[in-house]
Amino acid sequence: MAGPTGDVGLTNKTFAWRGYLPSVPLLDWASTYKRETFASDAIAAVIVTIMLIPQSLAYALLAGLPPEVGLYASVAPLLLYAVFGTSRVLAVGPVAVASLMTAAAIGEHALAGSQAYWAIAITLAFMSGCMLMVMGVLKLGFLANFLSHPVISGFISASALLIAASQLKTIMGVNATGDNFIDMVQSLVKQIPNTQWLSLCIGLSAMAFLWWVRKGLKPLLVRWGMAARPADFVAKAGPVAAIAASTILTWALHWQAQGLKIVGTVPQGLPPFTAPLWDMALWKSLAVPALLISVVGFVESVSVGQTLAAKRRQRIEPDQELFALGASNISAALTGGFPVTGGFARSVVNFDAGAQTPASGVLTAVGITLATVFLTPALYFLPKATLAATIVVAVLSLVDLGILKRTWAYSKPDFAAVLATLLATLSLGVELGLVVGVGLSLALYLFRTSRPHIAEVGLVSGTEHFRNVNRHQVQTSPQLLSLRADESLYFANSRALEDQVNNAVASHPQLMHVVLQCSAINDIDASALESLEAIEKRLGDTGIKLHLSEVKGPVMDRLAQTHFLADLSGKVYLTHFQAIQELAPEIVA
Amino acid sequence: MAGPTGDVGLTNKTFAWRGYLPSVPLLDWASTYKRETFASDAIAAVIVTIMLIPQSLAYALLAGLPPEVGLYASVAPLLLYAVFGTSRVLAVGPVAVASLMTAAAIGEHALAGSQAYWAIAITLAFMSGCMLMVMGVLKLGFLANFLSHPVISGFISASALLIAASQLKTIMGVNATGDNFIDMVQSLVKQIPNTQWLSLCIGLSAMAFLWWVRKGLKPLLVRWGMAARPADFVAKAGPVAAIAASTILTWALHWQAQGLKIVGTVPQGLPPFTAPLWDMALWKSLAVPALLISVVGFVESVSVGQTLAAKRRQRIEPDQELFALGASNISAALTGGFPVTGGFARSVVNFDAGAQTPASGVLTAVGITLATVFLTPALYFLPKATLAATIVVAVLSLVDLGILKRTWAYSKPDFAAVLATLLATLSLGVELGLVVGVGLSLALYLFRTSRPHIAEVGLVSGTEHFRNVNRHQVQTSPQLLSLRADESLYFANSRALEDQVNNAVASHPQLMHVVLQCSAINDIDASALESLEAIEKRLGDTGIKLHLSEVKGPVMDRLAQTHFLADLSGKVYLTHFQAIQELAPEIVA
Repeated sequence: MAGPTGDVGLTNKTFAWRGYLPSVPLLDWASTYKRETFASDAIAAVIVTIMLIPQSLAYALLAGLPPEVGLYASVAPLLLYAVFGTSRVLAVGPVAVASLMTAAAIGEHALAGSQAYWAIAITLAFMSGCMLMVMGVLKLGFLANFLSHPVISGFISASALLIAASQLKTIMGVNATGDNFIDMVQSLVKQIPNTQWLSLCIGLSAMAFLWWVRKGLKPLLVRWGMAARPADFVAKAGPVAAIAASTILTWALHWQAQGLKIVGTVPQGLPPFTAPLWDMALWKSLAVPALLISVVGFVESVSVGQTLAAKRRQRIEPDQELFALGASNISAALTGGFPVTGGFARSVVNFDAGAQTPASGVLTAVGITLATVFLTPALYFLPKATLAATIVVAVLSLVDLGILKRTWAYSKPDFAAVLATLLATLSLGVELGLVVGVGLSLALYLFRTSRPHIAEVGLVSGTEHFRNVNRHQVQTSPQLLSLRADESLYFANSRALEDQVNNAVASHPQLMHVVLQCSAINDIDASALESLEAIEKRLGDTGIKLHLSEVKGPVMDRLAQTHFLADLSGKVYLTHFQAIQELAPEIVA
Repeated sequence: MAGPTGDVGLTNKTFAWRGYLPSVPLLDWASTYKRETFASDAIAAVIVTIMLIPQSLAYALLAGLPPEVGLYASVAPLLLYAVFGTSRVLAVGPVAVASLMTAAAIGEHALAGSQAYWAIAITLAFMSGCMLMVMGVLKLGFLANFLSHPVISGFISASALLIAASQLKTIMGVNATGDNFIDMVQSLVKQIPNTQWLSLCIGLSAMAFLWWVRKGLKPLLVRWGMAARPADFVAKAGPVAAIAASTILTWALHWQAQGLKIVGTVPQGLPPFTAPLWDMALWKSLAVPALLISVVGFVESVSVGQTLAAKRRQRIEPDQELFALGASNISAALTGGFPVTGGFARSVVNFDAGAQTPASGVLTAVGITLATVFLTPALYFLPKATLAATIVVAVLSLVDLGILKRTWAYSKPDFAAVLATLLATLSLGVELGLVVGVGLSLALYLFRTSRPHIAEVGLVSGTEHFRNVNRHQVQTSPQLLSLRADESLYFANSRALEDQVNNAVASHPQLMHVVLQCSAINDIDASALESLEAIEKRLGDTGIKLHLSEVKGPVMDRLAQTHFLADLSGKVYLTHFQAIQELAPEIVA
């Protein structure tokens, strides 16, 4: 049933939280937990754990952090999300774009790989967590709506290109720098003579292998008689195979002695307890990056969560998600991690592997903990080039330049937003790129609404309907002008309305009545009201009456509180047809 | 006639300029100039000259400049506006708010009254002039529409209070400082013991006299038998009387010897030729203030121009006005002046005095030139407190706190915009105040459009019309849901649409058809298209068909370029009534 105000009511159960404190979805799913669900959850957890280990190491490397930090960031956040999150299958941990943004934010404060750098990463996760929780409590989830699809798409594509470029230096085994894409590529080109050929061979081989695993292995396995789902999971284990093979080869052939960069000693043991730095100057300078990381992470996470929830007719609650992601990030900061969010690939794998409840996340956390305790010595000989290769292959699938073509065909402002975000992110970096994209998309929207479409309409013969005189065969009268304003009236477009009414009146010399059809007017603000009064007065000076028709309920309620309706020379008609019947009956007859 | 695109055509003659270079309206009015018009213009010019002399001196004082600069700024700009301006009666020169903004912009660069200060004022006028001309050529006049009435109103009221507070120190004969209203008032309170009593007496007497002239003199003269219009002009000459009287008394009673601050030596002669400073660092730091002065000046000028033009069925062309005001400011910079714009009071006086053409402005310029050549020695004994009193009385009439009450009743967002602009301008200064006001009004607009009103509608019995089920007695069917989205669909509200459709569907278990009435949807951007596709897919999964009705022509054209219409499970109906006839005939019968 629709609610008492005429809005479609928020009757869904999940919305009962609105207006209250954040809830604890754990209490719902854990109290009804069944044994048969456990098997599904456990299988999914094993598969996700195998997938997460190389990803976590790689994204820590991308963020400029020691590899074990990636594992630390994949334990506590999974547990906290299981307590507070509303998605049944979302897997929280380090992700590519947030890792890149983390590197960009910390890069100017400390040297990558240093203790100070790590401490700042922890602080960033803590700040981001606090911001997300506060936004969740204040129900600010709607703010993410201001990131349009074109802006997100351009930003993700550009970030993926930046990430791929940044990983090439590891694959080439050289040192290269650059704050933006062009600098980075130039720096790489200059370093070509210093290329470490062994590193490059391992990196390229790993990339070729991983690419083939993605595209060719699954069809091959299916042709060999394997069922589609297991074939898919074998293919997902590709990065683990690449890591195992290159680690064993390096150990057996002593490649590190030939200068190949390896991961080296990784501390063994549980994630440590850590605390953020309490440095006000640092917090101030990290505030904007932390906010951007929070918003981007939230948008990524909610998109994934909503897509997967819809497939099983479940729902996620964005404001509660903010709170859950906030708690996850704070837990990351307290256990040696860095900013985390819900990842796309791992959540899809979790879903496809049959995870039913967040218990799958809890079990994955146990799996990663076991890895931090027992597996780290085995990572000593892992070549960094292999990790870089897994990142490159993973992120290149995020690049979607086809959106440029699609938006060009559909909407030029959307195309401009994609292109500007893409170019700004590549040339100015992730933070400014995002700000430029959001700013431009809002400016284009405001620009469009500031030029309202105002159509002259006429009666479609034999009906009670009115259509644009230039698109349809309709009937009009020289004494009566029917105008339909196709936009809510507000300060930025109210003057345009005045201009257009004046011009329309000037071109209709026999005019006696102007009827403004208000069916598309959802709001009239104080500025627009002044403009309507000005129009009324100016028409009145030339003896023309102004009438309104089809004024919506809420707009009428507001106008009723002013003098406008009392001073109106004409009338307010329920339907435009009634206005024409009374004012120009010759058209209707 | 409406134009070919269905928009109301810009058929008015003045709009033929659009898309071309700025025109020279002088050629129009000068070529048809008639002798009888000259008499009207000359009388108006004399009255405006008498009014402008004290105003020009006072606003130069307000801007922190020597008094003669105010006269210089009232000569060349009037001539240039007569050549390029589209208003017949606008009087261009120094105005209160622009003078305050000039003082705020230059204050941090040089000491008020110094040669360097004057040089920067000239530079500011030059920059503002260039910006206005460029905006005019690029047809950016529409940008001024983003200053809403509430923001302008709050800004003008706060500026007037700031100006009045700043003039009190001159009236009290003390030195006081303060960047904002509270600091300024505090500083004045501290200076009370140092009050120069003679100065205060003269200032208060002048204020009382000017107030009485404004409110009481005209009725009195009319009661004594004078006609209303001459009575009005006598009242307008009040400041001249106050200046003459206080100057003569100071000369006769040697008040300057008792410490009264007087204007002193004012250079005699024509306005000098000057040039702006070519200092890049200075230009950079003045860029934002110059832009704000330009925009505020333009808005003030265009409002006055449009109000007066409408009274005589004339029109002004905003983009050409930008060009004309730009030329006026550049001419001010080249002849020793400071930023100027079209003033409210003087233009109204010009209009009421019967000015017919910009020739009145040319004659006023001649009058002010005569004043700079012959009158300046007579200003030696003029007390500064008298000038300050004329400013205070003039600006206090601009304070309109009633707007707070009016907007509170009509629209809370508009109220918030007024209040925020008012408080920010008083506490943070004119520049930040304006930025806060514009930012907040845009944010509030975006916030509102991000929460679309979506109503469930039903058929009004016996008609073809549909209304909100909660406001009207209407007919509905359990198998069919009619939704009307009362907002264009774009990125910031597309997710809200998804949520609301999902919830509405969840509460209608027997549902087979959803019909989205698109009569209020003026645009669907790429993000919203993705949301519609998501809605379509989700409804399809549960066997519900999605239909559209009353899609507007331009929206339909755009959708036709995509796969959406081809993939749509339902149909697109010309009218919502046709959809109901076909899908739920039992309602119609």
